[in-house]
Amino acid sequence: MAFPCATPYLFRMASPEIEALTQALSRLPGLGPRSARRAVLHLLKKRETALAPLLTALSAVEDNLATCSNCGNIDTTNPCAICADHRRDSRALCVVEEVADLWALERSRLFPGRFHVLGGRLSALEGVRPEDLAIDSLVRRVEEGGVDEVVLAMNATLEGQTTAHYIAERIERFPVRVTQLAHGLPVGGELDYLDEGTLAQALRARRPVA
Amino acid sequence: MAFPCATPYLFRMASPEIEALTQALSRLPGLGPRSARRAVLHLLKKRETALAPLLTALSAVEDNLATCSNCGNIDTTNPCAICADHRRDSRALCVVEEVADLWALERSRLFPGRFHVLGGRLSALEGVRPEDLAIDSLVRRVEEGGVDEVVLAMNATLEGQTTAHYIAERIERFPVRVTQLAHGLPVGGELDYLDEGTLAQALRARRPVA
Repeated sequence: MAFPCATPYLFRMASPEIEALTQALSRLPGLGPRSARRAVLHLLKKRETALAPLLTALSAVEDNLATCSNCGNIDTTNPCAICADHRRDSRALCVVEEVADLWALERSRLFPGRFHVLGGRLSALEGVRPEDLAIDSLVRRVEEGGVDEVVLAMNATLEGQTTAHYIAERIERFPVRVTQLAHGLPVGGELDYLDEGTLAQALRARRPVA
Repeated sequence: MAFPCATPYLFRMASPEIEALTQALSRLPGLGPRSARRAVLHLLKKRETALAPLLTALSAVEDNLATCSNCGNIDTTNPCAICADHRRDSRALCVVEEVADLWALERSRLFPGRFHVLGGRLSALEGVRPEDLAIDSLVRRVEEGGVDEVVLAMNATLEGQTTAHYIAERIERFPVRVTQLAHGLPVGGELDYLDEGTLAQALRARRPVA
C-alpha cells in the first residue's frame, strides 16, 4: 500500500530554530551535515548537561572576545593572558603564523617567552603581502628593545619559510639572535615513509653523535 | 640554548572562558579534544559569521525546546510541528525508537503520517522495561481511534524487533493494520559482504519477479 499524495513541502524534520542550529554547527570545521545533526540531537536530548553549558560557554566567550593589541593572540582579555603574565620571559619572542600555532606551542609547554601572531603567511598565489601581516608591529617590538632572541616558528611549507626569510631580513639590523625551528625527522618517523624534502633537511642538518 | 626554568603552571593556551567552550564542544558526539579546538579557533576567528550565528541559534533553541506531549518528538513547539500540521495523514502512525529515527524518516520524504517516539527500546540487559518507554501512551492513541495503520519502524536489531513484537501484541485487539519495515538487502548491498542474518531475511521474504 502506497501512502497517498505525499507532497514534498509536507516534510520537515525539525523547526526552523533547530534547522538553524544544525546549519550553524555544520559550518564548523570537522563537522558535516550528518555529524551536525547528531550533535544537535545530543544537545536536544541533554538540555541540562550539554545544551545549557555550551550556551553559557559560548556566550561568555562572545562577550569578552578580544584580539591582543600587543601580540595578535585571540583571548578574552586585552592584553592577552600571555602578554599580561609577568612570569613569562619577555626577552624571548616566538613568531607564529596563526593562533592555532601559538596554542600548539603552549601545549608543548616548552617555550616560556612571549609570542607574536602574524595572522597568516606571505603568499604570491593568494596575494598576501607583508603589509597584510603583523610584520611592521613585530619590527616595532624588536626595535623597542628588551628582546634577546626571536624564534621564527613558521610552518615548514614553502610559504612559511619564505615568510621566515623575509622577517629575518627585516630584523637583521637589530642586535637580536634570530633562530628558527629545526627541520628533520619527526619523532617516530620512518625513513622509508618520509618525503625527500624532509630527508634532505635531516641529512643537511646532521649532528655529531653525542 | 635551553630556555630557562619553564615551570609547567606557566603555560595556558587560552583563558578559562575559551577552555570551557572547548570542553563543552569536545563532549558533543563526533568531536574530540582536537577537533573541538579547531572548531573553537574557527569560532574565535570568525566572530561575526560563525560565533554570533551559532550563539543566536543555540539560544533560540534553548529558549523554546519542548517535548511534544502527543508523540514524544523534540521540537521548539508543543505540540510539535508534525502533530500540529493538519495536512499530515493522522490515519497512519509510525512508531520509532528515537527522535533521530523520526528525522531519518522525514529526510526520506516518504511517510506523510504522524509519529510516535518511544524514547528507546526494550532491553533486558540495560533494564529497560515497557513502562520506561512511551508504550502506554501509544496504546491510548490507538485506542482513541482514527488510526488505520501502525507502522512499526524499530531498528533491525534484536532489541528493536523484541520491542516491535511486544507493541504488536499490545495493540492486536484494536481494529488497525499493524505493519513493519521490510528487511532485506540494502540498496547497493553486495551479497558477498552481507551478514548471514540479512541474507536469511532477504531469502525468506523473497518476492516473485514483477
